[in-house]
Amino acid sequence: MPLTLAERVRSGDARAIARAISLIEDEAASAAGLVRDIFPHTGHSYLVGVTGPPGAGKSTLVERLTAATRASGETVGVICVDPTSPFTGGAILGDRLRMLSHVHDEQVFIRSMATRGHMGGLARATSDAALVLDAAGKSLVIIETVGVGQDEVDIVRTADVSIVVLVPGTGDDVQALKAGIMEIADIFVVNKCDRDGADRMVTSIESNLALQAYGEGEWRPPILKTEATTGHGVAELWATVQQFRTYSENVASGSSSNAASGSLPNVASRSSPNVASGFSRTNRARRLKARNEFRLRDLLTHRFMELVEHEVLGAGEFDALVARIAAREVDPYTAASDILSRALRSKL
Amino acid sequence: MPLTLAERVRSGDARAIARAISLIEDEAASAAGLVRDIFPHTGHSYLVGVTGPPGAGKSTLVERLTAATRASGETVGVICVDPTSPFTGGAILGDRLRMLSHVHDEQVFIRSMATRGHMGGLARATSDAALVLDAAGKSLVIIETVGVGQDEVDIVRTADVSIVVLVPGTGDDVQALKAGIMEIADIFVVNKCDRDGADRMVTSIESNLALQAYGEGEWRPPILKTEATTGHGVAELWATVQQFRTYSENVASGSSSNAASGSLPNVASRSSPNVASGFSRTNRARRLKARNEFRLRDLLTHRFMELVEHEVLGAGEFDALVARIAAREVDPYTAASDILSRALRSKL
Repeated sequence: MPLTLAERVRSGDARAIARAISLIEDEAASAAGLVRDIFPHTGHSYLVGVTGPPGAGKSTLVERLTAATRASGETVGVICVDPTSPFTGGAILGDRLRMLSHVHDEQVFIRSMATRGHMGGLARATSDAALVLDAAGKSLVIIETVGVGQDEVDIVRTADVSIVVLVPGTGDDVQALKAGIMEIADIFVVNKCDRDGADRMVTSIESNLALQAYGEGEWRPPILKTEATTGHGVAELWATVQQFRTYSENVASGSSSNAASGSLPNVASRSSPNVASGFSRTNRARRLKARNEFRLRDLLTHRFMELVEHEVLGAGEFDALVARIAAREVDPYTAASDILSRALRSKL
Repeated sequence: MPLTLAERVRSGDARAIARAISLIEDEAASAAGLVRDIFPHTGHSYLVGVTGPPGAGKSTLVERLTAATRASGETVGVICVDPTSPFTGGAILGDRLRMLSHVHDEQVFIRSMATRGHMGGLARATSDAALVLDAAGKSLVIIETVGVGQDEVDIVRTADVSIVVLVPGTGDDVQALKAGIMEIADIFVVNKCDRDGADRMVTSIESNLALQAYGEGEWRPPILKTEATTGHGVAELWATVQQFRTYSENVASGSSSNAASGSLPNVASRSSPNVASGFSRTNRARRLKARNEFRLRDLLTHRFMELVEHEVLGAGEFDALVARIAAREVDPYTAASDILSRALRSKL
């Protein structure tokens, strides 16, 4: 009997990995079954999220980081999250042409992801693609995202380590700080550090960090300077990732719940419910939990909407309802309540 | 009897508008009722979406545009979508301090939006806040987003007109093109056009547009050069917005469905289902439909998840399930199916 796709993925077959990720990207019907099959064999990769504004040089940095990790024996999968291209359904191909330096290394798998513009589709597809690389035995999975949107923040902040890449000279420093990615950084990288303004940017990040309270023994995001084109600072970045890994696997969760693993003495707990403890935030077990929670919520809403559109409502009914909302004949809250009631009464 | 909040919003009372948007931002229980009440009185504003990478000078441009539109008799509401700050629940306050030049003009209402990091929360809140400004009688509502994420793309691409602001000198031109916002532009603005590289950026956008086929009479996104700090080019931008408005209200939808309004002769229809026709894309009625469809989907999934967490599942059960997924005892697809079945059998 020929091997199933899931089995071929697990054997590390690059063509099978590519095929599996394509199924996921296309939202093929068989993708769910595939993820179901491989899921019990996942959970072994270390997930590195890399984000930052366009033009920060993330692609080159990830390429250099890949080379550094290969040298220390890791097998690597890289997912480049391309921006959604809502009208063409395709991604700009620049990313796919890069990283040619790894093209003959079978232990490196690189893939760009795009989506058809469905709500949340990108995060879901990226998350499932990471599972494929995990099941395929990659010890390290790097997810690189362009931009600073909510989807991408959700992807990167639930990675095992989040690297935020900034670059000097892209307008006011405060503009970079506005990007909503400051709080998710475990490690800051100021790339293109040969440029004017690099030191000012480091100072600016440091000032921002100085506003936050870090407890004794708590991880304070280090700021590294790199020059990805020459490789300067990349070895130090990789060493810092490994330090963070050790830290996050041993730090207490900082939570009052029973989720904790090891413990640190004298952890000052924070009282505001809106401010996650730095300890809890860096605890790896909690990250895994957040990642799986995100996945479950996303899948659940996606499945629910499929059910509504294909089972609960008749053909064309959803569109007709939207048209009635546009005509102000019904408001969206009432329409949503009505559909929800019908779904619950449908006994499917 | 005192006026209700919805009535006070409709009278244009600035304090009531502020209060209403705060309720929406906080996801207060009363927010749904408020939107329900005002919804029949909405649909009159023209919605302008402005997006682009951080540092492009969007804030200043929006301020200048507001002044230009005020001079031509519009009443204006501005919503600045602040990046989500997932760990602090707050937004960086820079935006709130700006646009002081309009502070004494009662016909201008300016508000920054932030969210608590809920999935889709930002798009939902922004959309509802726009309804508040619409009901309050603002003839023009400008939504400015920072960044290029899916949420923000969804907000801007369903606006009546989408303005994409780029800036020279932020790295490779191709990086700017990667941002996933090229396809949503009805109008391109190269801001800070006094900078080196402005002409190269215009050429780069033109080359990109040249790759696309535009039919006869079809809207081809113009590229304007502005210098927001001096106001250079802003009057032309406002004139172009008005041109687009006239065009989009008269162009055929390009759809084979019955959604169309006016018609253009000799419209070459495009066959690929994944490629929306440029005509259909610029048709205002279709934008309105897309906006309302987005709103309905978002509300529906949001309400469904509330139901699942508070009615279908017992206290702590969702978390326990997430923990089982993290431990690989169950896969997320199976877990989602199980919850969905229970929700449908719950007869709530």
